[in-house]
Amino acid sequence: MININDNTYKQRLEKLYDWMTAENIAITLFEDSEEHRDPAVRWLSGMPGDALLLLTPTRQSILIPWDTNIAEAMAQADTLIPYNEFGRQCTKALQKIAAFLKLPSGAKIEIPPVTPYPAFLEYVELLNGCDIICRHDGIHSTVVKARAIKDASEIERYRKIAAITNDIIDLLEQKIRAGKLNTEAKVALFIESEARARGCEGTGFGTLAAGPTRSFGIHAFPPYTAGPFATDGLSILDFGLKYQGYTSDVTLTFVRGDLAPDQEPLVILVQNAHDLAIKSLKPSVSALSIGKIVEDYFWEYEKVMPHNLGHGIGLEAHEGPSLRNRADNDWTLEPGMIFTIEPGLYDVKFGGCRLEDDILMTESGAEVLTKARIIQL
Amino acid sequence: MININDNTYKQRLEKLYDWMTAENIAITLFEDSEEHRDPAVRWLSGMPGDALLLLTPTRQSILIPWDTNIAEAMAQADTLIPYNEFGRQCTKALQKIAAFLKLPSGAKIEIPPVTPYPAFLEYVELLNGCDIICRHDGIHSTVVKARAIKDASEIERYRKIAAITNDIIDLLEQKIRAGKLNTEAKVALFIESEARARGCEGTGFGTLAAGPTRSFGIHAFPPYTAGPFATDGLSILDFGLKYQGYTSDVTLTFVRGDLAPDQEPLVILVQNAHDLAIKSLKPSVSALSIGKIVEDYFWEYEKVMPHNLGHGIGLEAHEGPSLRNRADNDWTLEPGMIFTIEPGLYDVKFGGCRLEDDILMTESGAEVLTKARIIQL
Repeated sequence: MININDNTYKQRLEKLYDWMTAENIAITLFEDSEEHRDPAVRWLSGMPGDALLLLTPTRQSILIPWDTNIAEAMAQADTLIPYNEFGRQCTKALQKIAAFLKLPSGAKIEIPPVTPYPAFLEYVELLNGCDIICRHDGIHSTVVKARAIKDASEIERYRKIAAITNDIIDLLEQKIRAGKLNTEAKVALFIESEARARGCEGTGFGTLAAGPTRSFGIHAFPPYTAGPFATDGLSILDFGLKYQGYTSDVTLTFVRGDLAPDQEPLVILVQNAHDLAIKSLKPSVSALSIGKIVEDYFWEYEKVMPHNLGHGIGLEAHEGPSLRNRADNDWTLEPGMIFTIEPGLYDVKFGGCRLEDDILMTESGAEVLTKARIIQL
Repeated sequence: MININDNTYKQRLEKLYDWMTAENIAITLFEDSEEHRDPAVRWLSGMPGDALLLLTPTRQSILIPWDTNIAEAMAQADTLIPYNEFGRQCTKALQKIAAFLKLPSGAKIEIPPVTPYPAFLEYVELLNGCDIICRHDGIHSTVVKARAIKDASEIERYRKIAAITNDIIDLLEQKIRAGKLNTEAKVALFIESEARARGCEGTGFGTLAAGPTRSFGIHAFPPYTAGPFATDGLSILDFGLKYQGYTSDVTLTFVRGDLAPDQEPLVILVQNAHDLAIKSLKPSVSALSIGKIVEDYFWEYEKVMPHNLGHGIGLEAHEGPSLRNRADNDWTLEPGMIFTIEPGLYDVKFGGCRLEDDILMTESGAEVLTKARIIQL
């Protein structure tokens, strides 16, 4: 099912074990649950969800899945223990494994940085004698940073996802021009159907299809309705395909009819900002600076973009790097990163325009993987 | 758009202000974000997502939405401030509002119990002088408990959602019997399409359609594929409709052909467990005990159900009460609660069977709102 080299997981784990040894961490816990999705579990084991993954001082991985049937079919780990054996309680699982491993007093156990404060207190109490570590800049963040730089097999997969996405973009343009997809729901369901027909796991996030009366919303609510799409004015279509775990993320804008004097600049400025951003991408440049270039450009025309310029994509629809123009954004662009560039402008009266492509950062600059566009009907 | 009486939000807020006064809480923060969805924001203001809601000592609500256009169209609050004014940083927003309110030293600020431990430390540092409260059993849990008991307008809405769900169940049976929905994707997309046509916001969660080769998974992965559905053997279909924010949640099993000797008991035991559970529902009974009745019943036949018997539904697909048979489950059934009953058994070789209905708890017993069924083809 997953065409991933068996060694990929092992190689990723080996690096983590090295980090754990260097930092003297006895156990690292990853948790993917309804409350906290963490694709690190899939990245390190192939298990697509609802599982704990524990890495131990003996360089062993213990996978604790909710659904053992799916784990046996899809996942790789040194040991597999059903989550039900711990009453599906993460604290209990960790406590039992720590006891089994006979950890010395003061042993460091690293838990996910998203662990709620009250749960943290519970771990401290239950794992009496251990040193519970819960921090932004620990092993989990190391994984987030590692995931942001795609390896050769991931890049290959992205070329495949981009090709499928581009096919569907072309089909969408054809069908919409032919008047065959004239409601938000028809457009969104066409994408769902075509995605499955091409072997995708599904869409990477809920498709946003917003006709002219709803395109003013950054993320239209509800995401799509039975209402009209691509009628007179500006319609936004934001979607992604999930293929072997990885998601694409593109946004098209459809423009029909003569635009009002206040609509035209939205379209022109967004197209220009998109091109400007892509031209500005270089390895070793701060991701923040690209966001700033676009915001400054819009500001010359007294326009404000109400969201970030872009974000990494991968096993999550939103992951590192962030292209947010904010002081605490310390991402630097590096070859192998795959991220979106998605300038957008919105007006409550005139509607919105967004153009979003997926970019692979290379040694020599930006490779635009997708063929998103503003389509004049 | 939202047919909710303006007073509903006010009444809910008034109760919270009273609790805040009684507990001497100066500010309560609710956060609905990509990291932590909290439907309390919608329940208290109508804002469907991506916003902060702050309640103040002067009994005022401050809504801080990401998308002000959507907030103006849908939400109610005393004050509305764009999240962008705080650089979309929750800590910063709280810090500025606390400064503006000139809170006395030691003022209690209650933040969501899902706040990660590192973020908690940040709040403590930034809101120097305030007492940051982050606990399981505070104001947020009070809201979770209050949300579990639906009021008259919510129950009315659920009757409407159930009617739409039941219509679609009937249609599904017809179309599947007629051979018109013969793949997982066709079934899932039919539901998406019918939901929108009936004015739903969408489905309440990703539809799970698992044909005979995949029904062994509790939550099949991927949720649906282009593969066959309702062919020989056991197929599971788990879906919900989202209507004005509230979701239904039902599971049908389709049985085609002669069952193997190992398949038949799955079907019979699940149907019996479903009926037994519903018969056992009474107000004032512990929710845990209902889960136990079903687990004990299965155990008589040496079968184990790998998931909980049921869960509340509402603005979330999973909310209180839980019908989990576990010592820490302290929910008691009360009139007005709406929850699922969903016994299921799974076999990696023979497939699975689950039957899930939505139940309204009344003074006199259980009212089964939905018409889920095991359908012999």
